[in-house]
Amino acid sequence: MDIEKLRALLEGVREGSLSIDRALERLKSLPYEDLGFAKVDHHRHLRKGTPEVVFCQGKTVEQVVKIVERLIQDGGSNILATRASEEVYRGIKQAIGAAEYHSMARVVVVCPKTTNPRVGCIALISAGTADLPVAEEAAVVAETLGNRVERIYDVGVAGLHRLLDNLKRIAEANVIIVVAGMEGALPSVVGGLVDKPIIAVPTSVGYGASFHGLAALLTMLNSCAPGISVVNIDNGFGAAYQASLINRMCTKSRN
Amino acid sequence: MDIEKLRALLEGVREGSLSIDRALERLKSLPYEDLGFAKVDHHRHLRKGTPEVVFCQGKTVEQVVKIVERLIQDGGSNILATRASEEVYRGIKQAIGAAEYHSMARVVVVCPKTTNPRVGCIALISAGTADLPVAEEAAVVAETLGNRVERIYDVGVAGLHRLLDNLKRIAEANVIIVVAGMEGALPSVVGGLVDKPIIAVPTSVGYGASFHGLAALLTMLNSCAPGISVVNIDNGFGAAYQASLINRMCTKSRN
Amino acid sequence: MDIEKLRALLEGVREGSLSIDRALERLKSLPYEDLGFAKVDHHRHLRKGTPEVVFCQGKTVEQVVKIVERLIQDGGSNILATRASEEVYRGIKQAIGAAEYHSMARVVVVCPKTTNPRVGCIALISAGTADLPVAEEAAVVAETLGNRVERIYDVGVAGLHRLLDNLKRIAEANVIIVVAGMEGALPSVVGGLVDKPIIAVPTSVGYGASFHGLAALLTMLNSCAPGISVVNIDNGFGAAYQASLINRMCTKSRN
Amino acid sequence: MDIEKLRALLEGVREGSLSIDRALERLKSLPYEDLGFAKVDHHRHLRKGTPEVVFCQGKTVEQVVKIVERLIQDGGSNILATRASEEVYRGIKQAIGAAEYHSMARVVVVCPKTTNPRVGCIALISAGTADLPVAEEAAVVAETLGNRVERIYDVGVAGLHRLLDNLKRIAEANVIIVVAGMEGALPSVVGGLVDKPIIAVPTSVGYGASFHGLAALLTMLNSCAPGISVVNIDNGFGAAYQASLINRMCTKSRN
Amino acid sequence: MDIEKLRALLEGVREGSLSIDRALERLKSLPYEDLGFAKVDHHRHLRKGTPEVVFCQGKTVEQVVKIVERLIQDGGSNILATRASEEVYRGIKQAIGAAEYHSMARVVVVCPKTTNPRVGCIALISAGTADLPVAEEAAVVAETLGNRVERIYDVGVAGLHRLLDNLKRIAEANVIIVVAGMEGALPSVVGGLVDKPIIAVPTSVGYGASFHGLAALLTMLNSCAPGISVVNIDNGFGAAYQASLINRMCTKSRN
Amino acid sequence: MDIEKLRALLEGVREGSLSIDRALERLKSLPYEDLGFAKVDHHRHLRKGTPEVVFCQGKTVEQVVKIVERLIQDGGSNILATRASEEVYRGIKQAIGAAEYHSMARVVVVCPKTTNPRVGCIALISAGTADLPVAEEAAVVAETLGNRVERIYDVGVAGLHRLLDNLKRIAEANVIIVVAGMEGALPSVVGGLVDKPIIAVPTSVGYGASFHGLAALLTMLNSCAPGISVVNIDNGFGAAYQASLINRMCTKSRN
Amino acid sequence: MDIEKLRALLEGVREGSLSIDRALERLKSLPYEDLGFAKVDHHRHLRKGTPEVVFCQGKTVEQVVKIVERLIQDGGSNILATRASEEVYRGIKQAIGAAEYHSMARVVVVCPKTTNPRVGCIALISAGTADLPVAEEAAVVAETLGNRVERIYDVGVAGLHRLLDNLKRIAEANVIIVVAGMEGALPSVVGGLVDKPIIAVPTSVGYGASFHGLAALLTMLNSCAPGISVVNIDNGFGAAYQASLINRMCTKSRN
Amino acid sequence: MDIEKLRALLEGVREGSLSIDRALERLKSLPYEDLGFAKVDHHRHLRKGTPEVVFCQGKTVEQVVKIVERLIQDGGSNILATRASEEVYRGIKQAIGAAEYHSMARVVVVCPKTTNPRVGCIALISAGTADLPVAEEAAVVAETLGNRVERIYDVGVAGLHRLLDNLKRIAEANVIIVVAGMEGALPSVVGGLVDKPIIAVPTSVGYGASFHGLAALLTMLNSCAPGISVVNIDNGFGAAYQASLINRMCTKSRN
Repeated sequence: MDIEKLRALLEGVREGSLSIDRALERLKSLPYEDLGFAKVDHHRHLRKGTPEVVFCQGKTVEQVVKIVERLIQDGGSNILATRASEEVYRGIKQAIGAAEYHSMARVVVVCPKTTNPRVGCIALISAGTADLPVAEEAAVVAETLGNRVERIYDVGVAGLHRLLDNLKRIAEANVIIVVAGMEGALPSVVGGLVDKPIIAVPTSVGYGASFHGLAALLTMLNSCAPGISVVNIDNGFGAAYQASLINRMCTKSRN
Repeated sequence: MDIEKLRALLEGVREGSLSIDRALERLKSLPYEDLGFAKVDHHRHLRKGTPEVVFCQGKTVEQVVKIVERLIQDGGSNILATRASEEVYRGIKQAIGAAEYHSMARVVVVCPKTTNPRVGCIALISAGTADLPVAEEAAVVAETLGNRVERIYDVGVAGLHRLLDNLKRIAEANVIIVVAGMEGALPSVVGGLVDKPIIAVPTSVGYGASFHGLAALLTMLNSCAPGISVVNIDNGFGAAYQASLINRMCTKSRN
Repeated sequence: MDIEKLRALLEGVREGSLSIDRALERLKSLPYEDLGFAKVDHHRHLRKGTPEVVFCQGKTVEQVVKIVERLIQDGGSNILATRASEEVYRGIKQAIGAAEYHSMARVVVVCPKTTNPRVGCIALISAGTADLPVAEEAAVVAETLGNRVERIYDVGVAGLHRLLDNLKRIAEANVIIVVAGMEGALPSVVGGLVDKPIIAVPTSVGYGASFHGLAALLTMLNSCAPGISVVNIDNGFGAAYQASLINRMCTKSRN
Repeated sequence: MDIEKLRALLEGVREGSLSIDRALERLKSLPYEDLGFAKVDHHRHLRKGTPEVVFCQGKTVEQVVKIVERLIQDGGSNILATRASEEVYRGIKQAIGAAEYHSMARVVVVCPKTTNPRVGCIALISAGTADLPVAEEAAVVAETLGNRVERIYDVGVAGLHRLLDNLKRIAEANVIIVVAGMEGALPSVVGGLVDKPIIAVPTSVGYGASFHGLAALLTMLNSCAPGISVVNIDNGFGAAYQASLINRMCTKSRN
Repeated sequence: MDIEKLRALLEGVREGSLSIDRALERLKSLPYEDLGFAKVDHHRHLRKGTPEVVFCQGKTVEQVVKIVERLIQDGGSNILATRASEEVYRGIKQAIGAAEYHSMARVVVVCPKTTNPRVGCIALISAGTADLPVAEEAAVVAETLGNRVERIYDVGVAGLHRLLDNLKRIAEANVIIVVAGMEGALPSVVGGLVDKPIIAVPTSVGYGASFHGLAALLTMLNSCAPGISVVNIDNGFGAAYQASLINRMCTKSRN
Repeated sequence: MDIEKLRALLEGVREGSLSIDRALERLKSLPYEDLGFAKVDHHRHLRKGTPEVVFCQGKTVEQVVKIVERLIQDGGSNILATRASEEVYRGIKQAIGAAEYHSMARVVVVCPKTTNPRVGCIALISAGTADLPVAEEAAVVAETLGNRVERIYDVGVAGLHRLLDNLKRIAEANVIIVVAGMEGALPSVVGGLVDKPIIAVPTSVGYGASFHGLAALLTMLNSCAPGISVVNIDNGFGAAYQASLINRMCTKSRN
Repeated sequence: MDIEKLRALLEGVREGSLSIDRALERLKSLPYEDLGFAKVDHHRHLRKGTPEVVFCQGKTVEQVVKIVERLIQDGGSNILATRASEEVYRGIKQAIGAAEYHSMARVVVVCPKTTNPRVGCIALISAGTADLPVAEEAAVVAETLGNRVERIYDVGVAGLHRLLDNLKRIAEANVIIVVAGMEGALPSVVGGLVDKPIIAVPTSVGYGASFHGLAALLTMLNSCAPGISVVNIDNGFGAAYQASLINRMCTKSRN
Repeated sequence: MDIEKLRALLEGVREGSLSIDRALERLKSLPYEDLGFAKVDHHRHLRKGTPEVVFCQGKTVEQVVKIVERLIQDGGSNILATRASEEVYRGIKQAIGAAEYHSMARVVVVCPKTTNPRVGCIALISAGTADLPVAEEAAVVAETLGNRVERIYDVGVAGLHRLLDNLKRIAEANVIIVVAGMEGALPSVVGGLVDKPIIAVPTSVGYGASFHGLAALLTMLNSCAPGISVVNIDNGFGAAYQASLINRMCTKSRN
């Protein structure tokens, strides 16, 4: 809240150039809007080119469609529906029309809009074929958010040479996402080679003592290589969102 | 590595069109040498102004001192010894002399060197008084790594107004570290208010069903606010290191 | 209980030195009869107007129907069948007739009876759309038990302003139920704002390291905001029952 | 925020009866103070007769003393320092003087003030001798908060008859706290006998598969007796605080 | 085994000072032969009238049928197939004919044989309707093993009076099985009332923090009432088998 | 219990149509009086010759002494104080005098009384030297409770031949206690060899993935050998108490 | 890598004393190239006669087929597809033709090739019928890798005599795989009898407190019999692969 | 064992058609005698030159000394006392004399004997300085058991180049032990580079979400690199023992 704006408002009231009712109106839009303002601004900003996100898991098709319709009425485009089943996609398609389904990523992009050329670079490394759905969720989200994404897939510990072959591409990115299930050692190896911020995504890929991704999660949290932080198991979206925040800050500041 | 390129290089040497020195130069940048040199380069770079780090927990005083001495012989300065007890500090002080002890942070800075003015900004938010050792570890590490740090302490959920009062300072940072024990809800609240990358540090502060920080860790991993990633319980150093990577990239790119 | 005391009492009755009423009085206060009376009274009271509850999960349709029929023969009305599938509802409907199904809440109200105007107020806050089944279970149970319920839904940490907008309504309730999955931080935030007893309900909404609601449960148990207690994961019924006990005591005592 | 007060303020400005500077002053104390106001009011109210609470675990003696001194400067009395060691007590005693130590409860009451006669009733039931520190923490906190407390100690499952002997006293309370370690079955038994809100406190008493109170915690969360909610392991303070909120609401509303 | 003793024995046989029958007798009691004979005896004994047991879970219908057929060829009767689906039953029925299915208990009795009148008494107490499959598994197994079983069902903590009403029947049993899910408090309560060995069976009945029976299991292991031991979650068979061992020893010794 | 029935009964007494003895008879069979008598009888019986037990862990020396003194005033002898430190022993010794300390078992027997010749037989098998404190706790408790105990110690899986050498002694016992830490496989092996009830006691002996006895506990709960039930980790007392119940029933019934 | 050696090499090339081909040869064996070549060599070696392995779980049929086709193009034979459903097998069969399905083992061998006579010996011991799928996975993998496998199945603790009967066969193997679910005690028993390296495979066979194989895993990790190491739950492949490494080394070295 | 065969044998002895020596020979090979002899032979063999092992943790100094003295009386030498404190060492030293203490390894070698030249090769790789005690336990045990050990220490993920520099030494070993704490990724990396059996030893080195070695344990169990098996957390002895079994088999077979 700007003290100068407040003073101007009060002077307007004193001078009669501002009616009490209009002053009240504007004052009401201070306090929580203010807190709010940040939020609204931020939201408004988000709606300009950056997508709103609907997490579909645990919601009925009807609920998802209703939420998406409301966002479109608010002028939204490039709306992301994540963890979206084929069925959710068909529900959105039928109700709204403009929608693309990335089936491996389980992501629907509603009202897709050609964004400006994608900027910066996020390197997206994944360990095994079974990790692809999570990696692709991250990729599609990051691209829809306007980032350039370098996919470096199928680079497990057993394929260390493939990782080394791509080291230059990886090192040029502003931020790196590493997706791995099983023992989840890949982020440690990457972190030992490259000095860029790494967001590690454990996946639930594995069996037995992987405990649905717990093993990979613990591995990544305990990494002895610095520069690594971790998101929830299978949370490709979360990694992409944070990577996008970092990438765009680097990119923006360059201009 | 392309065998044909290698052959051409050797033929150039045989024919005299390529001096041995230049050939050596190019050979040094062969793929896997690259790795080696890159590592060395990187290491060398690290040693110029940026600190080496020794994690003291689980090492004897003698081991720590020996490691630090070797790093100094390699020309190191601003060497960080984390999780350093009073006893470790005294051991280093006696052997080397130039050492500062940040007792709350349990960090020793060996051969401290006046760095260039600290750049960028990392906001460092912590919840409770008992979280201070972890927060200070992050703060001292981040500052020694050359970052400007805004400390916003004692801002628990019960002190939400203090958080709101500092929103502007927080929103201006390039990256935010949030340190919290107990239920660890603070990063979610901050993440709902500010659109900057947040690195969440769960602490082992709490009792009973906090299970030595597990509760806070799970809370942060499951945060419904986007833009948050998590490091290990009590890992103030790790948060500071990653935040520094992000902050310096933003800052560097601005110049 | 001393057999001699009993004999003396009976002899007093026979001899007329003890009136039957005083004998009854003393017999009623015999240690374990007391318990019996309390129990019976209490049960009788429960059956007058307040619902019996059948937890359907793990029971066959036939078992549920048989239990409900027995309760009706005992004069029950407003009988609650919780965790009731569509199939259970149809079984009850066919056997008994008078039954309403609240499908989102998975609750059947058998022999619904217009209760007296609902009294007091329970504020029922829930975080996300996927938490609605648990929230509605709480709402339907609380209303059937005769309480007025203020529903404040879809108020996650990201919608903090919506929470603040409803602060007055929340603060006027006698007791607050907060339903949240994922990281379960909402009760801590509410507890920092309002000084009323809060019953927190973790839900199994989430994925990965939410471990089917364990993360939210631990968050709530470790809340640093006082005034919060917790029920089992997804236990909307339990929260409503305890909230009803508290609300009716407050309300009763006012008259 | 009261719209009428705002209008009056603006009218005062228009009429010149209120200077712009004073209006600004007052407006500044709206938005966040407002949120704040509630907080401050609440805090102020809390400071009138109701204690502030300092959780000492994880804080140094110096930190505790400094916090307590600040609270006293703000006019606080009956300040509660919980989880306070003998050493913390001595630190407070030396710095401030007026302080009582409840050693079994590990609670210091600073600047104790004769409160009005304690009102209402909280029944406080505990299972075993080893649970007494947690039970006494609850008792001392509840009494300092102005509640009458009925202690019913040493009432384990093996002493069921003692429980039954005290049923009347228990049933007359407004709210019941049950403290139990080991298998933690006591709240279920009490919940089957009495229809009052029960706050269950698992303790870390036990060994082996009690896993430091986890067994008792799970037992209580899964209780099949309704009307029970649970606080953290060993959290006598939390139970007392919530019980006090409930008890005082019942009591207040009676007058 | 002493080689010298063996040689002496053989010399005795050669010299005629030891009859072949007595030599055989002594050879049979050689240490490890002993083991063998004991085992064989025991097995032979088992096959006389006492059932063999096939645990069906994780086996195909074909595998179960093949095992049962082999046991019948060895002269088995009253063979128990536990955790048997309807499909397993039909497979056995078709291949062998003589088979009874206890569907709630999921137990098939193959080649059922009228046993001698059932002896002794096992009291079988269960908490809720959903625990019946486990309780019935125990009941059918115990009865097939020749024990008299007193079923006391639907006796949860909320139905304490039903438990008390049956105290005499319970106290007369030689051994008591208590089956309970949810918080699993029932064995503690029974153990506080009766001084007989109690075998506690936690069930996986419950939800949320019951963690598929873990809560009940921990409760029972931590019981403060003595005389209780515990079998695996849902292990009705195991409880019945041990109870039968105890009951038959008591009964046998009486004659 | 119906108040009208009670009144009718009393009127019958007053009118002489019901004799006092028959009235007493009927009053005695009032539901909960029954409980009372059973409890009192049971307690009285317990105090005749069979020890009371005080679990010392978590109690102060003063508390233990006070409890023991009260039990002696009630005429107790052979009182068992388990988990008793040297310090607790000295406290009891000083206050009461007649006390024996079994230091390895950490058990004090207060007012030891020569019991009748020990009857029946409990086989007590333990795996390793480090398990001895738990095994001895069981042994001392069982002997004080009047049972004959056969100790078969140091019989781990690696010493299988020692186990086989003692098979006859083991098979003659009425009940077997098996104490084992580490992987806890011993009860399964014994259960495969002997057809007697086995009470398995996991110990906290081990390191790493033994998780303080959890590994042994799980092993024993999952044993594929039937006839095994389990008590809490390190609960030598509990095993001895249940074994004593079983052994004495077998023994009693023989006479 | 020695810069001087490199310089000498280049000088040799320039002076003509070293042919370009030999220089290339030597350059290829430079340290980190070494790594690369070693890997390739190793891979090439692997492809000669030893199978490639595709883990099918979590991959679509299309993905598996595509990977297998690529391996065949690289000249692979005896390719192992593990955790292969019937559907995966049919996909491979249709696309490639030469494929054998081991349905119990869930393994497809693609392009099976008659290997040289199987050498050495791996003893493969399994506890129960339900463990067979894991045991057979190990058996088929080990045989396809060229090892002779001795299957000793259905040898649980209850069938100890069967184990003893086969002791000679077991003791003659170079390495032993022991597969067991439930309590997983079998490796400990085998380890107490035989002094050969044992690879223990816990299976997810069991229920309740087996926690999907966790109990067996912990048992095996804590085994007090030396010479045992452990692979992941249900990881028959992993055990076979390591056993094959050991067996072939022993065998190779003999010739 | 067939009773008829036994009778025939005895009749042969009586009739003189079977000499006593041949009868003895055949009796010795009776099934379970076999076991006995095998065991004795095996034990006798073990005592010739190969060390006995005493695990000291959880044993008193007196107990350890007594066990060691008995082993020496049986002719033992090179007896290993593992997890031996300084105090245990002094106890042994005083009682027996001939004893060496490896303090970092916490191993005492009692009656050390110059063994034949150490044969074969075990590569012993460890990650960090804090892992040295576990690595040294493995090294000392392996050497005392007669193996040549190549120590490759301080080779974490961050020191990948050091690992690569030592690849040749590692690849020449018969078996590899990898010791690592924190995230435990090292065995996966080694397994991706070398095709030798790897025994992975997780250590309890780490903090927070390492959960005392659980994280490293899970990582290693879930390794996607084949050829890895795992021993208990901190179990350097177990790894060395199994590695020795493998190494000696390879070595023996070569001669």
